[in-house]
Amino acid sequence: MATTKSLETRHPVKALAWAAEDSSGKFSPLKFSRRATGEHDVQFKVLYCGICHSDLHLAKNEWGTTQYPLVPGHEIVGVVTEVGNKVEKFKIGDKVGVGCLVGCCRECAQCKSNDESYCPKPVFSTNSVYYDGTVTYGGFSDIMISDEYFVFHWPENLPLESAPLLCAGITTYSPLRRYGLDKPGINVGVVGLGGIGHLTVKFAKALGCKVTVISTSPNKKKEAIETLGADEFLVSHDQEQMQAAAGTLDGIIDTVSANHPVLPIVNLLKTYGKLIVVGIMEKLEVPIPLMISGGKSVVGSAFGGVKETQEMIEFAAKHKILPDVEIIPMDYVNTAMERLAKGDIKYRFVIDVANSLKKTE
Amino acid sequence: MATTKSLETRHPVKALAWAAEDSSGKFSPLKFSRRATGEHDVQFKVLYCGICHSDLHLAKNEWGTTQYPLVPGHEIVGVVTEVGNKVEKFKIGDKVGVGCLVGCCRECAQCKSNDESYCPKPVFSTNSVYYDGTVTYGGFSDIMISDEYFVFHWPENLPLESAPLLCAGITTYSPLRRYGLDKPGINVGVVGLGGIGHLTVKFAKALGCKVTVISTSPNKKKEAIETLGADEFLVSHDQEQMQAAAGTLDGIIDTVSANHPVLPIVNLLKTYGKLIVVGIMEKLEVPIPLMISGGKSVVGSAFGGVKETQEMIEFAAKHKILPDVEIIPMDYVNTAMERLAKGDIKYRFVIDVANSLKKTE
Repeated sequence: MATTKSLETRHPVKALAWAAEDSSGKFSPLKFSRRATGEHDVQFKVLYCGICHSDLHLAKNEWGTTQYPLVPGHEIVGVVTEVGNKVEKFKIGDKVGVGCLVGCCRECAQCKSNDESYCPKPVFSTNSVYYDGTVTYGGFSDIMISDEYFVFHWPENLPLESAPLLCAGITTYSPLRRYGLDKPGINVGVVGLGGIGHLTVKFAKALGCKVTVISTSPNKKKEAIETLGADEFLVSHDQEQMQAAAGTLDGIIDTVSANHPVLPIVNLLKTYGKLIVVGIMEKLEVPIPLMISGGKSVVGSAFGGVKETQEMIEFAAKHKILPDVEIIPMDYVNTAMERLAKGDIKYRFVIDVANSLKKTE
Repeated sequence: MATTKSLETRHPVKALAWAAEDSSGKFSPLKFSRRATGEHDVQFKVLYCGICHSDLHLAKNEWGTTQYPLVPGHEIVGVVTEVGNKVEKFKIGDKVGVGCLVGCCRECAQCKSNDESYCPKPVFSTNSVYYDGTVTYGGFSDIMISDEYFVFHWPENLPLESAPLLCAGITTYSPLRRYGLDKPGINVGVVGLGGIGHLTVKFAKALGCKVTVISTSPNKKKEAIETLGADEFLVSHDQEQMQAAAGTLDGIIDTVSANHPVLPIVNLLKTYGKLIVVGIMEKLEVPIPLMISGGKSVVGSAFGGVKETQEMIEFAAKHKILPDVEIIPMDYVNTAMERLAKGDIKYRFVIDVANSLKKTE
């Protein structure tokens, strides 16, 4: 058990988490505390929390921004245990979700147009500084609290372990909608078949698109087509295949979070096609002549707004778009992180927090 | 005088040009020929022809695509000398222009929506293979011919030496219009103050935008603001200046045709801002985290469609948007190319073809 620190215990609500203490990225139990439930706050018992690739980056301080102890987790589903006296949308016992965001300015052009994920002053669910000056702790913990503005209703018919919708899901749903990749007759490409990629296939298919998976691994073809429902599969280093498909895609969601060759991918786009990058990498070398001759774009896209996230959750429930998950106990998290780094997961780890966290104390 | 070759003389109309014969890029006089005037063709006497940076690239075969002898020139203004019997829009004596394009499929989605510059089967005014199997020769010549579809009316009140509008002008006018950077309240950035850049300032100002020039050269500030009419000037390597202007621009036209750091430029964009690349370089290293957090795009943009080019010419005539040109005789072209390579021109060389080509024979 790590030594608790004053900063983490200055709040009145005792909580328990697994946290990374340094850039080794190793997780161990941590006692900490959360703020008392404010008048607009919803406190909930965490049931499930997904593990996103960015949790791994943060745990190892790969972006240089990590404040230890780090309690990650921003795909959080739970059941409400307490609500503030001005909370309007939730009551005790409601099933709820919280995603990447627990704060934003609510005054900028983006916040006013329901695009809170592009607010220049975001407070993320983990590793951000909250308005009271404390660092935010995410869903690798037994209790979560958030202003109701950032809390989502979780439909009864949507499995609670589908928590990865809250980051991976909205990260792909948002650009599919924003850039018109959401209707029959549209050809969508998906680069990388991981947490976000497999949900891109499912959402794009549910929206009526034709879906082509582009992957480095030929052995993912069967799964992509037979299990996930993709229409086509291209091996990215097969020049013949890639050339035959040149100019066929309206848009591509690129989910790979490491630098990779994009010329053959841009070549798949139709005129005016968009390569939408959602995988956070340092930089990408973009081939300019192809971009100019085809009027093509490389577009960055963050997760999505509050209203849009609720809409996505309801769309997923209606169309039965469920992330493929491997449910794990909290004390498996170190192994899970190792497997995640190797890509050894189909397609998302989800921690069964409620049934495993207490036991590890 | 270079030896004439059979391929260049198989057509009946005798013509004279200056051509590059090999990758030294040196120009010398060339006798060649052009096709007889077909029923949809307009033949015209070339009066002025601009020199574009791409002419220099082509002359030296820097893109590996040059077919020698090369007769460049795709900013061509002249006076009609002959029209085919099905020509409807032009008559002998009309002042006309021809730009980058002399052919396209006219059947694809782009051609059908007046976006001929994105046709996948373009025939450029120079160094392309025309429908009769011959290589196209551009405006460094006494006579030009084109299907009337690609010929523009040149307004009486627009100086004939303003030929650079036909490539440099439309290359910036088109994305300003397409991406909504064309109205009061919009902040437009311009990277690089050359042939395209100085016209970007003039067009964007005429459209009512606020214009910021971003340049590596502090000594261009006076000219940018006092002569060209820009509102702001940023020195791209002045971190303090660049940071103070972060998040202020709706769109940026990047005219630099060599790789350069784009992180500080992308940082100038507002959320959803677009960095529109019109300078042809091999590749650009795009900073992904900034793109994702801001929903920003890097967009490639080619010149512009036929209808849009005529519209641009009329807009330029109405608003007196004239390229700043240095008029030169044809036998100065080798010196001009050397100066162009060094950036020693404000802002475009234009060859006075009619008054100088014959004399050099």
